[in-house]
Amino acid sequence: MPSAPPSWVQALKPSDPQGPDLLAAERNGSKVDSNKLAVLLHTQANLDRAAELTKLIEAEPVFNKDELLSMGRVDRIQRSLARGKALKRLSKKYNWNEETYHAAVKISGEPNVYGLHDGMFLKTLREQGNAEQHKLFLEPAEASRYIGCYAQTELGHGSNVRGLETTATWNPEDKTFILHSPKLTASKWWIGSLGRTANHAVVMAQLYIKGKNYGPHPFVLQIRDLDTHEPLPNIYVGDIGPKFGYNSMDNGFLLLNQVKIPHINMLGRFSTVDPQTSEYRRIGAPTLVYGTLTYIRSMIVLESGASLARGVTIAVRYAAVRRQFQDRDAEAAGVPGETPVLNYKMVQVRLLPLLAATYALHFTGRNMIELYNRNQEVMKKNLAAQAASKGSPGPEELQPGAELLADLHATSCGLKALSSTIAIDGLEMCRRACGGHGYSSYSGIGTWYSDYLPTVTWEGDNYMLTQQVSRYLLKTARAVQKGNAPNNDTSKILSHYLNRQTTGAAYDVLNSDQDIVAAFAWRAAFLTFESLRLRDVQKQSWNSLLVQFWHLSTAHSQYLVIKSFYDAVFENRARVAAEVGEPTADILRDLFRLYALHTMELHSAEFFTAGAVSVNQLTLARTTAISALLDRIRPNAVSLVDAWSFSDFQLDSSLGGYDGNVYEKLFNRARQNPVNTLTLDPNPDSTVLVKRTSKL
Amino acid sequence: MPSAPPSWVQALKPSDPQGPDLLAAERNGSKVDSNKLAVLLHTQANLDRAAELTKLIEAEPVFNKDELLSMGRVDRIQRSLARGKALKRLSKKYNWNEETYHAAVKISGEPNVYGLHDGMFLKTLREQGNAEQHKLFLEPAEASRYIGCYAQTELGHGSNVRGLETTATWNPEDKTFILHSPKLTASKWWIGSLGRTANHAVVMAQLYIKGKNYGPHPFVLQIRDLDTHEPLPNIYVGDIGPKFGYNSMDNGFLLLNQVKIPHINMLGRFSTVDPQTSEYRRIGAPTLVYGTLTYIRSMIVLESGASLARGVTIAVRYAAVRRQFQDRDAEAAGVPGETPVLNYKMVQVRLLPLLAATYALHFTGRNMIELYNRNQEVMKKNLAAQAASKGSPGPEELQPGAELLADLHATSCGLKALSSTIAIDGLEMCRRACGGHGYSSYSGIGTWYSDYLPTVTWEGDNYMLTQQVSRYLLKTARAVQKGNAPNNDTSKILSHYLNRQTTGAAYDVLNSDQDIVAAFAWRAAFLTFESLRLRDVQKQSWNSLLVQFWHLSTAHSQYLVIKSFYDAVFENRARVAAEVGEPTADILRDLFRLYALHTMELHSAEFFTAGAVSVNQLTLARTTAISALLDRIRPNAVSLVDAWSFSDFQLDSSLGGYDGNVYEKLFNRARQNPVNTLTLDPNPDSTVLVKRTSKL
Repeated sequence: MPSAPPSWVQALKPSDPQGPDLLAAERNGSKVDSNKLAVLLHTQANLDRAAELTKLIEAEPVFNKDELLSMGRVDRIQRSLARGKALKRLSKKYNWNEETYHAAVKISGEPNVYGLHDGMFLKTLREQGNAEQHKLFLEPAEASRYIGCYAQTELGHGSNVRGLETTATWNPEDKTFILHSPKLTASKWWIGSLGRTANHAVVMAQLYIKGKNYGPHPFVLQIRDLDTHEPLPNIYVGDIGPKFGYNSMDNGFLLLNQVKIPHINMLGRFSTVDPQTSEYRRIGAPTLVYGTLTYIRSMIVLESGASLARGVTIAVRYAAVRRQFQDRDAEAAGVPGETPVLNYKMVQVRLLPLLAATYALHFTGRNMIELYNRNQEVMKKNLAAQAASKGSPGPEELQPGAELLADLHATSCGLKALSSTIAIDGLEMCRRACGGHGYSSYSGIGTWYSDYLPTVTWEGDNYMLTQQVSRYLLKTARAVQKGNAPNNDTSKILSHYLNRQTTGAAYDVLNSDQDIVAAFAWRAAFLTFESLRLRDVQKQSWNSLLVQFWHLSTAHSQYLVIKSFYDAVFENRARVAAEVGEPTADILRDLFRLYALHTMELHSAEFFTAGAVSVNQLTLARTTAISALLDRIRPNAVSLVDAWSFSDFQLDSSLGGYDGNVYEKLFNRARQNPVNTLTLDPNPDSTVLVKRTSKL
Repeated sequence: MPSAPPSWVQALKPSDPQGPDLLAAERNGSKVDSNKLAVLLHTQANLDRAAELTKLIEAEPVFNKDELLSMGRVDRIQRSLARGKALKRLSKKYNWNEETYHAAVKISGEPNVYGLHDGMFLKTLREQGNAEQHKLFLEPAEASRYIGCYAQTELGHGSNVRGLETTATWNPEDKTFILHSPKLTASKWWIGSLGRTANHAVVMAQLYIKGKNYGPHPFVLQIRDLDTHEPLPNIYVGDIGPKFGYNSMDNGFLLLNQVKIPHINMLGRFSTVDPQTSEYRRIGAPTLVYGTLTYIRSMIVLESGASLARGVTIAVRYAAVRRQFQDRDAEAAGVPGETPVLNYKMVQVRLLPLLAATYALHFTGRNMIELYNRNQEVMKKNLAAQAASKGSPGPEELQPGAELLADLHATSCGLKALSSTIAIDGLEMCRRACGGHGYSSYSGIGTWYSDYLPTVTWEGDNYMLTQQVSRYLLKTARAVQKGNAPNNDTSKILSHYLNRQTTGAAYDVLNSDQDIVAAFAWRAAFLTFESLRLRDVQKQSWNSLLVQFWHLSTAHSQYLVIKSFYDAVFENRARVAAEVGEPTADILRDLFRLYALHTMELHSAEFFTAGAVSVNQLTLARTTAISALLDRIRPNAVSLVDAWSFSDFQLDSSLGGYDGNVYEKLFNRARQNPVNTLTLDPNPDSTVLVKRTSKL
């Protein structure tokens, strides 16, 4: 293959109409102001920062993405390290703060081998280390002399932290801990940055003092020599191998053979072993840890909107450019030419509710973060009081002011599960909606999907989390029945249902947006009390109710999404209209309705079993209302994805670039892929595989 | 990293209970005879052949799978060619027939670069070439002197074959055709084996004679030199780059610049251009082509069961070994130890309906193939009569005896869409049910999922196909109303509904298995006549009904699956019991019920809107019946997946091997992965990436 195609190939253009003309027409025909909407979503400051960072990163050859897609894992890891170093260099040069640095890592397009050092390692040292430990471990870690990771999950135990097998045995004689892996299943596993990069780890291990187990605690352990980077004695560490995605990360394993560490290496902010008396001591309440988990999950909710939006942006733009078949009726009516696939109802019904979901999830996440921040203020005021008490770690037993956190913690569990499921399933839906070309890595969706996928498992497996939500809802429902419920939104919707249960509901979801929210609340409350009856009255086993709980958690979380979206576009109606203009605000309200009615249709059996909505209204929603909303949103679809403001560099998609120049991009990337350097010998009887290799 | 782990690592075992003991206990506790069930599924002859082929293939180092998972694409393609050559060598050595050869390719574990030569190229030459062309093209192709591919899809056109842009212009002066790509979008694209391997192609191109277009026709074209393997003049060909899966295949592109080929290169079995008069001539009816498509889709249905079964096998075995948490009630009751996750209802409800689906799809596919074969016999008898007629190519207009084929063709469209969707979504469900380790490539599910994924798009995009089913159902419904419907099952269920419509249905799906089948038929018929009313009475546009049609096709196809499964285990009750024993037959009937009720629950709104099942029965199904079936099937789950008889070599899964030795396998593969050859320099200020590399 010659380095440039012959002139007759270079002269070829895609057949008319051209993609750029089609997307320009889409943008002209929309009433949405995508620039103003972008500011509403991101703020101008963030948009400016992203543009600036993208320019810097794009200029560095190491961030070129073309080669990554064809690379084997040995090369990927080296490239990942090179990219990590480049980001740290840029960070130093431009004096980025931490937020800007993390934004830059995101823009770079894939996790790099420093990811867990920059995240969980530094975070844990900061939050769980005392002043002396900050000096000893955090300072060299912040200076990147120590590169660390956070080693919790084991080969035999993921979600169940209490079941971890690694032990840390206190040694009163020489004031040390012995870290040990008693079984193969105790091997740390999946630990990001551990496989090849880290020289330190925070190791979660069962603390034993005089034979008694005090549960999992964090210990700092040096695992590799700072000069040679070889593992230290009695430490067996390595990379766990290829994965479905995330292959730029060296997730690792770690086995320890009676490794001795000094007393100071047990992170001592919340608990310690008295070196003189060997007494175990708690210091303060681990409320902050709960807070951190809630914050991390809220961030997942917020980011789920943007994560899905990448796929929706690509699929919507490509569907506006790609033309297949004639519409059967248009053909009969003599309208010439093929139809853009975005005009097909079967494509609209797949993509436009997902487009609506990107906005729904974004507003929900933002709402969660705001609630969290407001609550942190309250919590901080109460911290002193709490430090004195030695309550149990469950959120239910916290001091006054913690009621909102308990609610927030439970809702963040359910919302994390729902939002990441919506995002991942939606991304795959977008990929398939791109037809055959969606399968090409150049679509930009597949790789993104594979890298996003762990989100449904980490920070709480999505199925497991629904139990936590349900436990909280049952607990609140019992309190509501007894009349001693805390003052929060969950109590309110449960009380409302309990009071109105006998008179019933008659929500007009086709004509009242407020009734839509009320119908979702009603269904969630109905399922809560149904679950309560099965558990408390019928005494069904917890296990037999897990499926019911999963439905319950989903219903409650969907209510929260609907309510957040409603609050964002209706409660703040005037402010939104002032920011983006009335026509755009109008479309946002249509997106709310589409998202709500589409979700309702998917779960219609629950809505009418609950008596929240009549069969007739649901039938009308299915056959008429949703279709009308699709028609109204369709002309604005491209502008609505434009507002998400992904750069072409970030999307890395031949199908979904801003300009619509789909086919030339796809062709040019394809012809330059490294497989085309090979001239094979296809003769089965010849043992030669490659006749010659050439440059591209 | 040393080549073997230190002795203290080698001495480590997983914590108790051991996987092999757990799986042995599962097998002992089951009443299913997995060996006999295996014979029912596969026949003894096929089981023997698979075992023999696996032994031969496993013995060749080139088929080792460990390295593949970490390889870049340049290496993957070379390895794919090496594997392809090894298979051809084995085939010659052991004198395999074509069926055995294809079985061996499957067992080898991934498509290789000869895939489209062995499949579509040879098939097309055989079916669409005349005797002279068989001599000229097929013979050297069968001898592998010509290596070919089938070039239909283009950059700008996938599903819509009529929209292809490549032209073949007849040249009466020198009796040649000029093949040409007038636009960039005319580039052939996605063509398997074209990218680097093939030296010939069957090119589908719009035939033009004296300026008139006769539609797409197949032409044989040499594309590369037989000695140098370089592209011939005016041919621009290459690989289209990395994909979400299928990366062992060199899917390619092809552009042609006025390439001249002789008259004989147009495949002439069904149509030809008279070289003297330039007249276009049809020869015989293309019924066979319809038949071929129907056959291919029926095979996809059959294989969907086995494809899904790979994932279910892995997930079920691993779920029987993996233990997480204590059951909350067991814990309260003082039962010690963690619970195998297969005991959790939330895991059962995800995996056991999929286990049932593997059987449902298998029996459905087998039923389709049998119907197809029976019909081919009938068709062959009528071939002579048909050759005389020059009817339109639509299956509706075929001669008597073709009615069954029309039904079969339509049902194969719907079933292909449904079964491949069930398989692909089920595989991902299985992967997630494996928790964190499901994400490891060593789970064996991810790679299989990625390679299976194109099935939802090729041989008819799953969404597009639902239109064909609906068109056929509407047509049949109109005929039923007029009383001139053909005699087939579809007509029967539609007539039954029409006759009983006013009296209504009252199916007792919880107590009568026959009523389950009837309820699925009723709902499909209800949706057919609802669609007919929307289209014919309300005159809704075709486009506005696409979503309705998709639901309709799904409902009809689900009925066919339920009916096939019912016929297999109830109609043949005595034979099945004789073959596998009554206890195993009993569990097969439970699998039928679980699959049916679970499917019904997923679509409950349609079942009660149709009046097929009462709300009360559906509620009981959801809260009681399904749970009881899960309890009955649970102890037999491992034996039921054993019956699928995948070898460990085929599964290539550390989680799902036959012996249950999960953790040691996972650990040993991980430590030997090639990333562990790298000793990195993690210091961000150093430009060195790799300090040294070592052997494993």
